[in-house]
Amino acid sequence: MTLEENVLKRIKPGPEEKEKLQEVASELLARVSTISRIKGIEGITPKLVGSAARNTWISGTHDLDIFIAFPESVSREELETNGLLIAREVARNGINTEERYAEHPYLNMQYKGFDVDLVPCFAVKSAAEIKSAVDRTPFHNEFIKMSIPGREDDVITMKQFMKGTGTYGSELRTQGFSGYLTELLIVHYGSFRNLIRNACNWKPGLVIDMLEHGTVKHNDPLVVVDPTDPKRNVAAALSLNQFANFIDVCRSYSEKPSEEFFFPKEKEPMQDDEIINMITSRRSSFIAIVFRAPELVDDILYPQMDKMEQSLSALFEEHEFQVLNTGYWVKENAVVVIELMSSRLPLVKKHRGPPVWVYEHALGFKEKYADSDELFALYIDDGFYVADIKRKFSTAIELLEGKIESCSLGKHLGKAVAEGYTVLEDTDMAKINDPEFRRFLRKWEQNKSKN
Amino acid sequence: MTLEENVLKRIKPGPEEKEKLQEVASELLARVSTISRIKGIEGITPKLVGSAARNTWISGTHDLDIFIAFPESVSREELETNGLLIAREVARNGINTEERYAEHPYLNMQYKGFDVDLVPCFAVKSAAEIKSAVDRTPFHNEFIKMSIPGREDDVITMKQFMKGTGTYGSELRTQGFSGYLTELLIVHYGSFRNLIRNACNWKPGLVIDMLEHGTVKHNDPLVVVDPTDPKRNVAAALSLNQFANFIDVCRSYSEKPSEEFFFPKEKEPMQDDEIINMITSRRSSFIAIVFRAPELVDDILYPQMDKMEQSLSALFEEHEFQVLNTGYWVKENAVVVIELMSSRLPLVKKHRGPPVWVYEHALGFKEKYADSDELFALYIDDGFYVADIKRKFSTAIELLEGKIESCSLGKHLGKAVAEGYTVLEDTDMAKINDPEFRRFLRKWEQNKSKN
Repeated sequence: MTLEENVLKRIKPGPEEKEKLQEVASELLARVSTISRIKGIEGITPKLVGSAARNTWISGTHDLDIFIAFPESVSREELETNGLLIAREVARNGINTEERYAEHPYLNMQYKGFDVDLVPCFAVKSAAEIKSAVDRTPFHNEFIKMSIPGREDDVITMKQFMKGTGTYGSELRTQGFSGYLTELLIVHYGSFRNLIRNACNWKPGLVIDMLEHGTVKHNDPLVVVDPTDPKRNVAAALSLNQFANFIDVCRSYSEKPSEEFFFPKEKEPMQDDEIINMITSRRSSFIAIVFRAPELVDDILYPQMDKMEQSLSALFEEHEFQVLNTGYWVKENAVVVIELMSSRLPLVKKHRGPPVWVYEHALGFKEKYADSDELFALYIDDGFYVADIKRKFSTAIELLEGKIESCSLGKHLGKAVAEGYTVLEDTDMAKINDPEFRRFLRKWEQNKSKN
Repeated sequence: MTLEENVLKRIKPGPEEKEKLQEVASELLARVSTISRIKGIEGITPKLVGSAARNTWISGTHDLDIFIAFPESVSREELETNGLLIAREVARNGINTEERYAEHPYLNMQYKGFDVDLVPCFAVKSAAEIKSAVDRTPFHNEFIKMSIPGREDDVITMKQFMKGTGTYGSELRTQGFSGYLTELLIVHYGSFRNLIRNACNWKPGLVIDMLEHGTVKHNDPLVVVDPTDPKRNVAAALSLNQFANFIDVCRSYSEKPSEEFFFPKEKEPMQDDEIINMITSRRSSFIAIVFRAPELVDDILYPQMDKMEQSLSALFEEHEFQVLNTGYWVKENAVVVIELMSSRLPLVKKHRGPPVWVYEHALGFKEKYADSDELFALYIDDGFYVADIKRKFSTAIELLEGKIESCSLGKHLGKAVAEGYTVLEDTDMAKINDPEFRRFLRKWEQNKSKN
């Protein structure tokens, strides 16, 4: 049995799981129809969409996406009101029911062991005429159901490969490959192995347009034109880095396939002595900014964390602290870790002024510094005035204390930081005991062996 | 009496000094003629040139330039042989006679309190037809003797101003204003004060072409076309920095004239505690490379010191040591001082590799580092491979020990350094007791007050 067959055995839903899913899905679809009728809401079509409908789910991921399609003639308000009315009624038998919001509201519940979304949408004529992003899903569903039969195993093998290598998921936290994108890639390349083989030679700017109907130029590393909408790039959420990561793991897998790509061993949390050893052996300076994480959904939280990481990095660089690496980790607390060449700079700072021959600027510069207490020396270098002056922030801690609140940290994080933060330097990071944080720190010894 | 009149009183040769000079000059000129006649060397014209001939010397600078002009028809060998023959005969009464070399050999001697150069040259028809650089001097002499009368005082005042501000002298050590250039500037601007006033507004690219006959485009900060040679820029040896220094001091003098510009107080050597205080208050790192200075004339030594200063600076920057300031000082020992942001770097060094999608380079990069003992971590950042590796030289001392000899230090200095050098770090510089070195260190607190 090949490696991939072995993997498949572990992740492919068995007949029992499939039956169970069919049963629950049919039951829910029937309930949507019945309730619509009882409530006198006309023209409703219930649809099972997503991986459950396409036989491309990985065993154990019990997601059901039930779409409640309304005729196009219905108003948005009516759709939202009646859609939720039906959904709530269906959800009576569910638990942990929750109203959630995408472009319009939908319901999420747990039912008979499944994570069920009940999503009102418009039954538009084509994906080019959608009124809301969710209206597109039924079209994706039809396309995949039509083109995937016989390759479902390749899809779930690829999904597991992406999960294991951290490249699966199109949400903003991951910026990797969505389920639909994975399915399209398998349709295009024909098989798991062929996708892997081809991805080894991918380059940014690659365009896959199976129906040759694309109408828009996209500026993304990978463009997969949506077969159901010529204007749309299905891979728009894929970051350059995840694109590169995928190429990299495909090559490593080609060179030396192993089950570890699919089922990686979980990293061990770093022990105190490992943290101390990591920091002292690098001889760089670590700064960890710790604060209470605000309660936000991931798609809002993670972009703000990204922004904060970048803002802090820019703040340090602007003040001549050279940044080596950055990272962040979030749970109840958020921790942004910045590795610097040094957390201490000399007090003297070289400040280049105007060229001597620009009289007016030269006068202003000399007047500003010549008698200043902040001045070490004023001289001419290569025709320019240079002032050796006192640096305002000569340690990373001073800089953070003086400037972190004027940094652009994003609305919610700015508030969270203003409410209080702690800075841990170097080995003090070992004061954070959370094992997940201590796993995150392994980032600093990433890929030491070839996967 | 004005400030400048006061200055002039101190530096203008009195009638006695002038007479003495005339007397000695006449005697030497006569001896050249007599000796030529006796030796049967025909067509010789002896000439007094230089500031002595133009009444533009500063009292106490007893230089006599006696040129021994040969007819153009004479061969170079004959000129050298017979020129030195005459010169040696003249020098019989002198002391410390020395044969020196410019384009061809000449004699230098001390005679009756004068520093005398006896220089063979060709009497060419025009400065455009010279056979050797010295042949030009008699033409300069004629031009200045013709145009300077009445402005000699302005010339010597200006020369003293330049001496006092460190901008006088066109040799490679100084790269400032030559005597001839100063005279031409006075001819052009008419007076000391007018030159000062105009120089405040100088900008690089200024061309002064009094006879409007320049034929060549020069790429120097200041171009003063030689009235005796349309192709030549008299200010070619002036560096951009000295050009800028002169502008700066002219402005400062205009704002607040004082005798200190002409006769600056000599700086006090820095005391031990001053050196220690200077270094500890800046909190930067000082590295002083000390070695035995080779015995070379200034015009060879100083360019090599410049080159060494630049090479060492480049070496440090190349290995990520950020250079703040540099300087050097030479006497029996040479000392190159480099001020660094820090003399210690983290052991970890970020090494950016190829983009992931360039397959071949990517493979090579990963193979090189993936299993290396030098590796801290290998990861993908923004689509590029990055290896955090061990830095080879993490202290300035280690870097010097490993690399100084492969630095391009110039022929003589490379040899001198290879014979041995010492590195002094930070306050250890106070181990050098030479008062001149300790004056040189004041560079690091230069111009703290407005002149």
